[in-house]
Amino acid sequence: MVDQKKVGVLGCTGSVGQRFILLLSQHPYFKLHAVGASSRSAGKKYKDATRWKQSQQLPEEVKDMIVQECKAAAFAECDVVFSGLDADVAGEIEAEFIKNDLVVFSNAKNYRRDPVTPLMVPLVNTNHFDIIPHQRNVKGLNKGFLVTNANCSTTGLVVPLKALQDKFGPLDAVMVTTLQAISGGGYPGVPSMDILDNVVPFIGGEEEKIEWETGKILGAVNADATAFTHVEQTKVSAQCTRVAVMDGHTACVSVKFGGAKPTVEEVKAAMREYSCESQALGCPSAPKMAIKVFEEEDRPQPRLDRDLEGGYAVSVGRVREDPVFDIKFVALSHNTVIGAAGSSILNAEVAVVKGLL
Amino acid sequence: MVDQKKVGVLGCTGSVGQRFILLLSQHPYFKLHAVGASSRSAGKKYKDATRWKQSQQLPEEVKDMIVQECKAAAFAECDVVFSGLDADVAGEIEAEFIKNDLVVFSNAKNYRRDPVTPLMVPLVNTNHFDIIPHQRNVKGLNKGFLVTNANCSTTGLVVPLKALQDKFGPLDAVMVTTLQAISGGGYPGVPSMDILDNVVPFIGGEEEKIEWETGKILGAVNADATAFTHVEQTKVSAQCTRVAVMDGHTACVSVKFGGAKPTVEEVKAAMREYSCESQALGCPSAPKMAIKVFEEEDRPQPRLDRDLEGGYAVSVGRVREDPVFDIKFVALSHNTVIGAAGSSILNAEVAVVKGLL
Amino acid sequence: MVDQKKVGVLGCTGSVGQRFILLLSQHPYFKLHAVGASSRSAGKKYKDATRWKQSQQLPEEVKDMIVQECKAAAFAECDVVFSGLDADVAGEIEAEFIKNDLVVFSNAKNYRRDPVTPLMVPLVNTNHFDIIPHQRNVKGLNKGFLVTNANCSTTGLVVPLKALQDKFGPLDAVMVTTLQAISGGGYPGVPSMDILDNVVPFIGGEEEKIEWETGKILGAVNADATAFTHVEQTKVSAQCTRVAVMDGHTACVSVKFGGAKPTVEEVKAAMREYSCESQALGCPSAPKMAIKVFEEEDRPQPRLDRDLEGGYAVSVGRVREDPVFDIKFVALSHNTVIGAAGSSILNAEVAVVKGLL
Amino acid sequence: MVDQKKVGVLGCTGSVGQRFILLLSQHPYFKLHAVGASSRSAGKKYKDATRWKQSQQLPEEVKDMIVQECKAAAFAECDVVFSGLDADVAGEIEAEFIKNDLVVFSNAKNYRRDPVTPLMVPLVNTNHFDIIPHQRNVKGLNKGFLVTNANCSTTGLVVPLKALQDKFGPLDAVMVTTLQAISGGGYPGVPSMDILDNVVPFIGGEEEKIEWETGKILGAVNADATAFTHVEQTKVSAQCTRVAVMDGHTACVSVKFGGAKPTVEEVKAAMREYSCESQALGCPSAPKMAIKVFEEEDRPQPRLDRDLEGGYAVSVGRVREDPVFDIKFVALSHNTVIGAAGSSILNAEVAVVKGLL
Repeated sequence: MVDQKKVGVLGCTGSVGQRFILLLSQHPYFKLHAVGASSRSAGKKYKDATRWKQSQQLPEEVKDMIVQECKAAAFAECDVVFSGLDADVAGEIEAEFIKNDLVVFSNAKNYRRDPVTPLMVPLVNTNHFDIIPHQRNVKGLNKGFLVTNANCSTTGLVVPLKALQDKFGPLDAVMVTTLQAISGGGYPGVPSMDILDNVVPFIGGEEEKIEWETGKILGAVNADATAFTHVEQTKVSAQCTRVAVMDGHTACVSVKFGGAKPTVEEVKAAMREYSCESQALGCPSAPKMAIKVFEEEDRPQPRLDRDLEGGYAVSVGRVREDPVFDIKFVALSHNTVIGAAGSSILNAEVAVVKGLL
Repeated sequence: MVDQKKVGVLGCTGSVGQRFILLLSQHPYFKLHAVGASSRSAGKKYKDATRWKQSQQLPEEVKDMIVQECKAAAFAECDVVFSGLDADVAGEIEAEFIKNDLVVFSNAKNYRRDPVTPLMVPLVNTNHFDIIPHQRNVKGLNKGFLVTNANCSTTGLVVPLKALQDKFGPLDAVMVTTLQAISGGGYPGVPSMDILDNVVPFIGGEEEKIEWETGKILGAVNADATAFTHVEQTKVSAQCTRVAVMDGHTACVSVKFGGAKPTVEEVKAAMREYSCESQALGCPSAPKMAIKVFEEEDRPQPRLDRDLEGGYAVSVGRVREDPVFDIKFVALSHNTVIGAAGSSILNAEVAVVKGLL
Repeated sequence: MVDQKKVGVLGCTGSVGQRFILLLSQHPYFKLHAVGASSRSAGKKYKDATRWKQSQQLPEEVKDMIVQECKAAAFAECDVVFSGLDADVAGEIEAEFIKNDLVVFSNAKNYRRDPVTPLMVPLVNTNHFDIIPHQRNVKGLNKGFLVTNANCSTTGLVVPLKALQDKFGPLDAVMVTTLQAISGGGYPGVPSMDILDNVVPFIGGEEEKIEWETGKILGAVNADATAFTHVEQTKVSAQCTRVAVMDGHTACVSVKFGGAKPTVEEVKAAMREYSCESQALGCPSAPKMAIKVFEEEDRPQPRLDRDLEGGYAVSVGRVREDPVFDIKFVALSHNTVIGAAGSSILNAEVAVVKGLL
Repeated sequence: MVDQKKVGVLGCTGSVGQRFILLLSQHPYFKLHAVGASSRSAGKKYKDATRWKQSQQLPEEVKDMIVQECKAAAFAECDVVFSGLDADVAGEIEAEFIKNDLVVFSNAKNYRRDPVTPLMVPLVNTNHFDIIPHQRNVKGLNKGFLVTNANCSTTGLVVPLKALQDKFGPLDAVMVTTLQAISGGGYPGVPSMDILDNVVPFIGGEEEKIEWETGKILGAVNADATAFTHVEQTKVSAQCTRVAVMDGHTACVSVKFGGAKPTVEEVKAAMREYSCESQALGCPSAPKMAIKVFEEEDRPQPRLDRDLEGGYAVSVGRVREDPVFDIKFVALSHNTVIGAAGSSILNAEVAVVKGLL
């Protein structure tokens, strides 16, 4: 057993923040120590500052915590700070935290493209922690560092792609259409008049994120651990839609391999057998199977499969030949667990085991 | 004005049958003369045989029509018979009608692959009527003939593809993911427990239909009007999903051109300017614009756009460059109007103007 | 035919405002002349100022109208001004319009309790126009006057109650539980995370409106036409909930008669035969039947029945004995047509025929 | 700790059956020993016989159990048999099990009105077990007996009513409108075309069940434990609707007390402090609080509150004065846990502790 680390959550009243609070409740490694939100909420008890929208009840021990402003001083005692901040404020706030030598795991997009900051999916590229010494050097940090996790829809995609890349080499092309859950839009987020009996075939910035982030995540850290080498070979095209689903992003994926085309059975085996570092390290939130491969013809489905392994696994089904590319399949992932808060937490668990904090 | 033709509807109590009845009410060319359904319904008044599930009220003049069995004898006076039958019975019944020299426009899949039967989308390939003399020859018919319309999800796809093929030549490849409405599954059809807060990433047989039908519809009739020449060049890959939408299939499409890649503006112009024979012939149900091209970044949407031009037009939006293929876009079509009953009716209107009945 | 009156719409970009614009397009009495909204929208073309959320397309002739600020000066040429303003601004703005001697039909709640202002449901109490001369006196108006319409959920309730009161005398008690559509909350309004797979058993202020407004609407104008006599005898208790329905409020109603209890058949007959002044006057939007009584055991249903008579009628079904009170039934009404914009418009049609403007 | 009893589940492939299997997995008192379904499923492995529709995964140990026919012989070793059978077969099958001296806890309606069979809600009237010796006498049983649980919508209602009756004496009248979840209709059950963007204001037989069952459940066992004394004083009127909610029935309730009207605070206290025998006996599934009383103005809500205490508690909110009766409130209960399978299981737990099996 490790000693419990004190952790803070920024953006604690939002959708991602609420999920952080649920996942951190009774966590073996982490103990919630401070919660932060905008000045409108600061000073209030958590239960009064938030409109709790989770189907699990708000943990008792959090109800009366006093919400702090998102200033490093208020989180100085935290070993780790998780950020569920909106992008419009995350940039400045996280910068101030880092400047004060804190450890930040962020769900925000602001520093994902930073050349010394990992863009980390805990089932894929936790080896990108190797850049942290260099990051500290560059940013003049002693114990602090910054790790971002990927966009929710990217996350569900790159896990099966990594399994394929590991087994069959870099892919040539990926086409993906996503059907994304409303919880991804936060609260109040998507108006009900937009999604009842409807599909919205547009999510601002989402397609660009998938198309760019994939290359960094599937890439490597260079030999002297000072930069990321992106996978340039794999072209990605995404179309993103919003559908009337509470949680769980569905992705319809077609892939073209760089080398010889494997069979459907080989692809399924590669996914089933895929395992990653966070599993090997025995992290408490790591799923037993990173990818569950369904044989049923109509699975995975968000309502039935999103909670598999507590939302930390990715489900894949309908693996079959593609008449245009090589193979197509359907992937499902829980957008606020492995796609957001859970991703940050599992990344931080890896950091704990690696002795980075 | 043409003389009104007497028409019959087979499968009149089902979802497609109900749409036929709505679209035929007060139609300038057609007058509903007979309705047919299974022996369970035969002999009853229509209003007692059906569970009306349309948001428009059941037309008064249909309420007391007596439902017939689906035998040619009961429809002998009909100039045209529309079939909304399920595939498991359509094959035999339609065969008996044709054998009795009746004219049948069918929404069922059974004869779509027949080499002398048109698979016709009224906004695309009404020139395939040219094969009718040969079909009559082969089947020994005097005035009867059979025309099928395409699968609902194929229909919404091939209209924009035809516009592109006409302008830029045959396509090399098409990738499409569909988000299909529940009305496409008929009634009772999709159980609510399968679709509330959910996506079902599978519709039996649907992907194969899209992948095969596209080539026949986009193809030609050969020089002596005895066979269809399929477009072989265009490879199609489809992934089909069911979503919580009442009416209106959304398709996310990526295309690779056979020749030089046109610009986004050229593609939009090609779609906007596309017009077809049913429009040129002045058919009453033909839309003013076959394809409406949206500039708004979040359109088309099923709830807002499916009823455009009474459901007879196809909506396209988000035309943009594709990092893997050439161009991607979103298409929307009303699955029970232009995707089913309306397709048969508009095909029959063309037949009227062409003097085929 | 009457001469077309010039009309304005305040709050034109909101949910009710959009419905006003649809219902006024091609209206025989009214011609849209000016549209007003907040200063944020003023000066823009209508199509740029609004996010159109109706399933019918925005009428061509309105697209380029320039949105005005909601000042009487900009609407001076209007014979009638319809107000779809939010309650937080309607009070002041409507007051300024009235002070400038304009005619206002308002959907806002602000003046519903004003002792000289009619609270009018066009299928119920258009005789309340009798107070207008007195209102003009009190407010010092020459040609202007103010009429409000009722809350959407009150409207669907009072129509059948009026039919019963007319036939059987004042009721003793009414219990009603409503299941209200999301469009009643405007746009963006109800967040999707609150209503997907959910019911919200609370709508702020709604129950109080139903319980109070019913007495004024079912009441009379006194002998010298200077005040309203409320129906005091009828106690009303309401519970209001929000459900995942786009349009159409459902109400489950139990009534206790003041006098002898009629039979179920007598109650159905009273509703079926109910007719009102707006019908007798031949107003173009008046429904042929004010109340449609269903015999089917599972009707009315919002999706199937809300558009009956263009949304201007009320549907009633499941009339049956009540083991606690006397009779119970289910009522359905289109909340943005007869429950909001349509109510104002039909009230104004009556005013036209009565020569009030 | 008690010795684990061997239990069987009839109707194991249906909606209620699946819930039984989930709730019995890792149960401290019960161990699943046999599962039964129709002859169509008999002989198959459970995983092949069922279409699993729960968001929790099918327990591993059940996957390969062989489904039995619903004959007593196949369940002879079971200490308890839970029945989730449909009403059209439950009557005969349960009779055969009882004739063979088995213990049956049934969710079916068939024997709820039997004069020697308890109609038991485990949070209300477990004292009705007192009739079991007499039932055995009448039916000639040695160790077997039959207990039914209530209709799902009755269950959520009678728990708060019992709290009020215990504290303030018998009620005079209860009016209730329910908004019921689709899972209550089983699978395939409610067609999606009936419930998307819709309300169905009718559930066959449901209102009659609520109106009748309440009196038996709130009643007593007579002095010599040979009959049930129904509460005759309390008149009940119910209106039942189906809404687009997966799990969780909402009830809007108005009550009129037989005696002096308590205050809102007294009513809330009575509910909060209510406790029942299954809690006192320490049954493992008994909730810590039978009734959770919400102070928030917009709670309880199905999505947020149905899983409280694992679905074994009832949530009440919006307790307020009623202008017609005395008090009104909103109650929410999980229809397949405390409203169905969980009710049977908790009843059986009480039987274990009482030494009845």
